[in-house]
Amino acid sequence: MNSEVIGIIAGAFSCTTFLPQVIKTWKSKSTKDVSLTMFLIATLGTALWLLYGILINSFSIIATNIVVLVFSITMLVLIFINRDKERG
Amino acid sequence: MNSEVIGIIAGAFSCTTFLPQVIKTWKSKSTKDVSLTMFLIATLGTALWLLYGILINSFSIIATNIVVLVFSITMLVLIFINRDKERG
Repeated sequence: MNSEVIGIIAGAFSCTTFLPQVIKTWKSKSTKDVSLTMFLIATLGTALWLLYGILINSFSIIATNIVVLVFSITMLVLIFINRDKERG
Repeated sequence: MNSEVIGIIAGAFSCTTFLPQVIKTWKSKSTKDVSLTMFLIATLGTALWLLYGILINSFSIIATNIVVLVFSITMLVLIFINRDKERG
């Protein structure tokens, strides 16, 4: 099988990795067990990948990381909103 | 700045993304708010990236994804152990 087919499928998985967590947290409004540090690292890492994609002019890296960045920033917002609520 | 420097820093962030969640869950033994689906997708995606790295013979893709795979499989194991316990 063409290795690029594997790469495209792998990229599709990467794009949607955080989506189930966003949906779960959106519904439960509970983030007690979720690591804030994980999503801070993910957001910074994804922003750097996006910058890398822009620098080397790679559409697939840019597109993938915009999607991941949207989900990871959404998780950061959900974590901050819900922790604030939980503290009262 | 050289774009490859940005790429290497971005890769380092990607490698360690799941580590804070592993540490948090290891300590708390609680996974109620953590999405199992997220780590299933992450594990499958990472395994595909590893396969892609092997197919195109890229050491950096292979090395990065072995690290990520170890953390994501660890999270899957922690989720299964703790959900089993929580169910009693």
